[in-house]
Amino acid sequence: MRDVAIIGVGMTSFGEHWSKGFRELVVEAGTNALKDAGISGEKVDAGFVGTMASGKLIGQEHIGALIADFMGLNPIPITRVEGACASGSLALRQGIMAVSSGMHDTVVVGGVEKMTDLGTTGVTTALGGAGDQEWELFFGATFPALYALMARRHMIDFGTTEEMLASVSVKNHKHGSMNPNAQFQNQITLQDVLNSKMVANPLKILDCSPISDGAAALVLVPLEKAHSYTKKPVRILASAQASDTISLHSRESLTGVKSAQIASQNAYKYAKLSPKNIDVAEVHDCFSIAEIMAIEDLGFFKKGEGGIASLEGRTSLGGEIPINTSGGLKACGHPVGATGVKQLVELYWQLKGDAGNRQVKDANIGLSHNVGGSGATTVVHIVKGEW
Amino acid sequence: MRDVAIIGVGMTSFGEHWSKGFRELVVEAGTNALKDAGISGEKVDAGFVGTMASGKLIGQEHIGALIADFMGLNPIPITRVEGACASGSLALRQGIMAVSSGMHDTVVVGGVEKMTDLGTTGVTTALGGAGDQEWELFFGATFPALYALMARRHMIDFGTTEEMLASVSVKNHKHGSMNPNAQFQNQITLQDVLNSKMVANPLKILDCSPISDGAAALVLVPLEKAHSYTKKPVRILASAQASDTISLHSRESLTGVKSAQIASQNAYKYAKLSPKNIDVAEVHDCFSIAEIMAIEDLGFFKKGEGGIASLEGRTSLGGEIPINTSGGLKACGHPVGATGVKQLVELYWQLKGDAGNRQVKDANIGLSHNVGGSGATTVVHIVKGEW
Repeated sequence: MRDVAIIGVGMTSFGEHWSKGFRELVVEAGTNALKDAGISGEKVDAGFVGTMASGKLIGQEHIGALIADFMGLNPIPITRVEGACASGSLALRQGIMAVSSGMHDTVVVGGVEKMTDLGTTGVTTALGGAGDQEWELFFGATFPALYALMARRHMIDFGTTEEMLASVSVKNHKHGSMNPNAQFQNQITLQDVLNSKMVANPLKILDCSPISDGAAALVLVPLEKAHSYTKKPVRILASAQASDTISLHSRESLTGVKSAQIASQNAYKYAKLSPKNIDVAEVHDCFSIAEIMAIEDLGFFKKGEGGIASLEGRTSLGGEIPINTSGGLKACGHPVGATGVKQLVELYWQLKGDAGNRQVKDANIGLSHNVGGSGATTVVHIVKGEW
Repeated sequence: MRDVAIIGVGMTSFGEHWSKGFRELVVEAGTNALKDAGISGEKVDAGFVGTMASGKLIGQEHIGALIADFMGLNPIPITRVEGACASGSLALRQGIMAVSSGMHDTVVVGGVEKMTDLGTTGVTTALGGAGDQEWELFFGATFPALYALMARRHMIDFGTTEEMLASVSVKNHKHGSMNPNAQFQNQITLQDVLNSKMVANPLKILDCSPISDGAAALVLVPLEKAHSYTKKPVRILASAQASDTISLHSRESLTGVKSAQIASQNAYKYAKLSPKNIDVAEVHDCFSIAEIMAIEDLGFFKKGEGGIASLEGRTSLGGEIPINTSGGLKACGHPVGATGVKQLVELYWQLKGDAGNRQVKDANIGLSHNVGGSGATTVVHIVKGEW
């Protein structure tokens, strides 16, 4: 089993791309990644792409072949993988398997979603397919509703407050203001969040990540060849994936995501590291409560203490563990299939010292946490600057 | 890179399952495969499932997690892959990578589609997402229309006749009549096909595979451990995947599928075999013309001679290369995501001598050919009885 490294990354800006279609977004992110790696398309052996709901959002399946075609990469194999909002990380995981197995040497991993071609009802219905269609969505339990249930339970059990939830969005908008690719680069206050429109009590519109278009891409090679491409490759130390029940009502607990706990414990084990060793992390803040559960599930804070830690600024740039320097899903945007790949783009820049004024000082080890649905899938990657 | 073997298979019958949903189909095929392998769910490390269009067909994405849950396999990772009608073979390919990389030891591979919950217009639109949504489907070019263009060109260039096309369906219904899992177990005549209703000239309804529900599953382990589970494992000799343009109008030729030619040439190279070594093959006969092109693209017959070979019975049971002993997509049925996995189920039974009265005598090496869309993806596997 060969070790694997990232040698180049690329992304589009995230936002409402009215003048770019699904294909243009993919090509832009993919060519940026190839350029960054300093290779041409002929070097690429295979690809994997994460896309959640292109069938419902743009009427297009067979995304792998579409991308091979529009990237000019025929006849290489490109395969789409889907695991709801964790689709991007799953594409990375398949890319890692393809390289580590020896089946392929140079693999492009992409993630993409074009969400603004449908109205919000259409998008909300499409996203509802990440949960249990028969027992949740059919009865009206959309994703804000599901996460609101988790938030309410967290508040009851641990005294988490609406201010603590709001502080996650404030921090992520602050980080997003330093990221030129972020959908929202405006800063907001606790009061802005608390006064914003209620979506599903206690979650307000500024507790929720937006509907976004965007794409991101990575180039993978065997670690042993990585230094012939770049002085500063980023090594994959761990790739871990776990599952939980698709519907909330079957879970043992609503205040944590079991698949995230299992995936992160496995990832730490594979990497021979503990939460203390992580310098910077991108986590899945689809709603503010999701980030609070994430930083607890990942072992950065004890269960129940994520809310106060957020309010106290311990997860901000300059804090003890900077979370979501990209702005996270909340401020950077959440084109669903792209998110898991964008997390690695941000970590790559952080570990190489290329993150501009949102740079975490001396960051050498990063972690990504990407959740599908309400936690039925979680994928955790740990990466390290290798130079 | 470890060699990989299949140690158990299972499937549902294919057809219109009015009393079974997507979940029930998956669980039935999956538990059949585990039983066949003689293992319990606790032994399984990971899974991959091929499903094409569940978002449009049943409003459900996040299929991997759904299956982990309903199979009682939480918290193991299960990942969905999608490549239109080749989704099943792509799931197998990811399973092979997972085992050969050493990342997982015991992997379940599944394929499933539940198509009859929508009306035919809905299904035809969903399937149209396998081609180019912007440049084909939007303008009304559904799949019968696309394959009709290929059929017409094949007729003009090579003198292929409607009788030759019809002979493919007649042969596949004959094979299907010997398969208790087949959707259609009735035999038909050349006249039945020629007199059946025109769908897209020259393709009539009996040239077309049906809309189907069904699921199929395989259990994979490293070859070195396979004999501890079964005396007769089936070894994966080659897994090859290639891509071509998503839309027909960009192709060099309409009378063959370039991705199938490339994938099969690579598969023969990996397996150190030639078409002559193949004892039995399952090929992608979504339309009668597709099987004629397939047996040419795979090198069983020269380009242009597939039609006459079919009419002469050279691809029937007892012929020189028995094609689609399961009944193929035409008679066994075509629940899209399940098809590529079902092909391996049939080959497994053939190589072990378990194919009942449709058994190919002394079959030891089998080939599967699974096409996505009009040929933008083709996956070819070669397998061998290892005892």
